[in-house]
Amino acid sequence: MSIQYPNGKRYRSNSSPHSSKTSIAYGGRGMSFESDIDESNTFYLLKEQAVIHKKPTPIQIVNVDYPKRSAAVIKEAYFKQASTTDYNGVYKGHYIDFEAKETKNKTSFPLQNIHQHQVDHMRNVVKQNGICFLLIRFQDTKEVFLLDAAVLISFYDHQKERKSIKKADIMTYGHHVHTGYQPFIDYLRTVDELYIN
Amino acid sequence: MSIQYPNGKRYRSNSSPHSSKTSIAYGGRGMSFESDIDESNTFYLLKEQAVIHKKPTPIQIVNVDYPKRSAAVIKEAYFKQASTTDYNGVYKGHYIDFEAKETKNKTSFPLQNIHQHQVDHMRNVVKQNGICFLLIRFQDTKEVFLLDAAVLISFYDHQKERKSIKKADIMTYGHHVHTGYQPFIDYLRTVDELYIN
Repeated sequence: MSIQYPNGKRYRSNSSPHSSKTSIAYGGRGMSFESDIDESNTFYLLKEQAVIHKKPTPIQIVNVDYPKRSAAVIKEAYFKQASTTDYNGVYKGHYIDFEAKETKNKTSFPLQNIHQHQVDHMRNVVKQNGICFLLIRFQDTKEVFLLDAAVLISFYDHQKERKSIKKADIMTYGHHVHTGYQPFIDYLRTVDELYIN
Repeated sequence: MSIQYPNGKRYRSNSSPHSSKTSIAYGGRGMSFESDIDESNTFYLLKEQAVIHKKPTPIQIVNVDYPKRSAAVIKEAYFKQASTTDYNGVYKGHYIDFEAKETKNKTSFPLQNIHQHQVDHMRNVVKQNGICFLLIRFQDTKEVFLLDAAVLISFYDHQKERKSIKKADIMTYGHHVHTGYQPFIDYLRTVDELYIN
């Protein structure tokens, strides 16, 4: 979910402790896939069902100012590319690791949304028997699917043949994620069905 | 590990993809507990033994500049307090979660090094059957100990009686971590003995 900010626009972060550069304060539910997932994770945490957090955005800090009697101010820093997926945590003793992406595309998921380092990380997690997947939301229908990392990696490795995953394939090889009220995106129900129960 | 930077000093980050404000480029091994753990984690990753990363330092971004034809520059940002521990990942299917602290104190570990939100996070992880602990290094002897989260929480909850954990208690209730060449801090060997094998 790469959101481009217009030049000079003041950056606004949301109230989540794990807000990142993609967490704009939309002031409403259902606006950002990321904030919807954050809300679900908060629900899971409060209900003591799981401990899953979004990792902070990695920042390369170049210059910090230390004014007397006030907090350190970062005066120059740059966004760095993350070397892992965005979300991880623990659920019923299992390690959970996933990336979440939303697409405006109506018929397929472009693989350019996924970066090499994320796929490498997923391969490593799978080797350690972690539960690893991609959550995809189609913006037009608001449908959410869980695609197991092994399936994603297979499509990723065949990019020379096809640069996207057809929605039909996602519906076949992936799993529909229930979206409701609390939590908004109940992906752990799908995790239960697929990996745990 | 709160490192205070002198006013106006130029910030230097190390080459780790998960460097944070506490990762000063020391240019040598054994200088920073954090960089030693990062090095051990890189070793585990390359040997396909575990996937454990330090989380990026959470930053509150206030102002970003978008120069034409170059990368976005963060012009004003602040360090935020993390709401979790610093390290997590997966090892043999198990969720691993820990905090690492070094102390100059020779006879005890001051509990002021541990924050309420970290203890809260540890309680949550323990409830989800995650493997959760504190790594402590005594700076003078370079000894490293693993203290299970449940033990740490117990000491933390009795701070009114005692504001630190005696080294003797750490040696009794904690577990010595082997330090060697590769990896430098072999905490997963201790994890194996305690939680897995």
